[in-house]
Amino acid sequence: MKGNIYMIAGPSGVGKGTVVKQLMKLDEKLALSVSATTRAPREGEIDGVNYYFLTREKFETMVAERGFLEHAEYVGNCYGTPKQPVIDQTEKGFDVILEIEVQGCAQIMEMLPEAKGIFLLPPSYNELEKRLRGRGTETEEKISKRLETARTEIAQAYRFDHFVINDDVDAAAARILDIIREYRD
Amino acid sequence: MKGNIYMIAGPSGVGKGTVVKQLMKLDEKLALSVSATTRAPREGEIDGVNYYFLTREKFETMVAERGFLEHAEYVGNCYGTPKQPVIDQTEKGFDVILEIEVQGCAQIMEMLPEAKGIFLLPPSYNELEKRLRGRGTETEEKISKRLETARTEIAQAYRFDHFVINDDVDAAAARILDIIREYRD
Repeated sequence: MKGNIYMIAGPSGVGKGTVVKQLMKLDEKLALSVSATTRAPREGEIDGVNYYFLTREKFETMVAERGFLEHAEYVGNCYGTPKQPVIDQTEKGFDVILEIEVQGCAQIMEMLPEAKGIFLLPPSYNELEKRLRGRGTETEEKISKRLETARTEIAQAYRFDHFVINDDVDAAAARILDIIREYRD
Repeated sequence: MKGNIYMIAGPSGVGKGTVVKQLMKLDEKLALSVSATTRAPREGEIDGVNYYFLTREKFETMVAERGFLEHAEYVGNCYGTPKQPVIDQTEKGFDVILEIEVQGCAQIMEMLPEAKGIFLLPPSYNELEKRLRGRGTETEEKISKRLETARTEIAQAYRFDHFVINDDVDAAAARILDIIREYRD
């Protein structure tokens, strides 16, 4: 049986990465899509595992050949979701998880209307602010900017099929898995 | 100590009324605001309990005197939240719950920026549709229309301070109470 494709998105700081990491541990028929980027690898990042690290030239060729489900430029670097590996995985029966930025979702919804959208929300803006502040790595100005961005991202939530609140990482991952399993039946 | 004011809103069919009814049972320092309406009382409805039933003339006088926190016309009838009783209750130390339609919230946010907004979301559009269908009282056309309205209502969620998913009435009511109690500390 062919697998389904799930977009998991949410505002800046909601903890999407952590929830997805936990989700992947819960079920062996899930495959996480690997994104492509033109940014330089950070220490310890492995090509083909964390990202496909591409030159800007190669990235642009793939854009021209319609090789991405979505792509965007973000703080001077390009990011994209290569299409072919996603299709291959679903054909092998895996449910593929795309962990993407909110702004990439509209493109995917257009290219793959059968993909299911899951939107992760914080319990509140206060909580989101607390988490951003808790990282301890960002200036007040950056935190304000991120909260502003989060608002515009949450304003896109209505385009998604499912809503999950990340009040607790394990609970949120389990709720996402429930959604995925319901589509399998 | 003065109480706070909470707006609880959510899309058509999310089960707001049921959740609020459950919430009111959980804490004795909560007061439910009674709305005013020009629609005729339904069987069993009591003036001052379910609604303040007003003539259109009286309603319009109150609008002119800025007696409402918000008011709107909906399917030919006027609905509004009288301001004075809400203020009186908070001064007596009650936390006041306003169960309102999404379109009324912008007016309240403007008149009472200190009011906290809690937005109730369905787990998914599929689930919302199932609930609307489950009522068994509405035509297919009305269900489609309500789902369309729900989308535009969910698009307003980002204006609220807190997000709660109504996957289970008891759990949703308990989560709202947690939010309210956090503001009391």
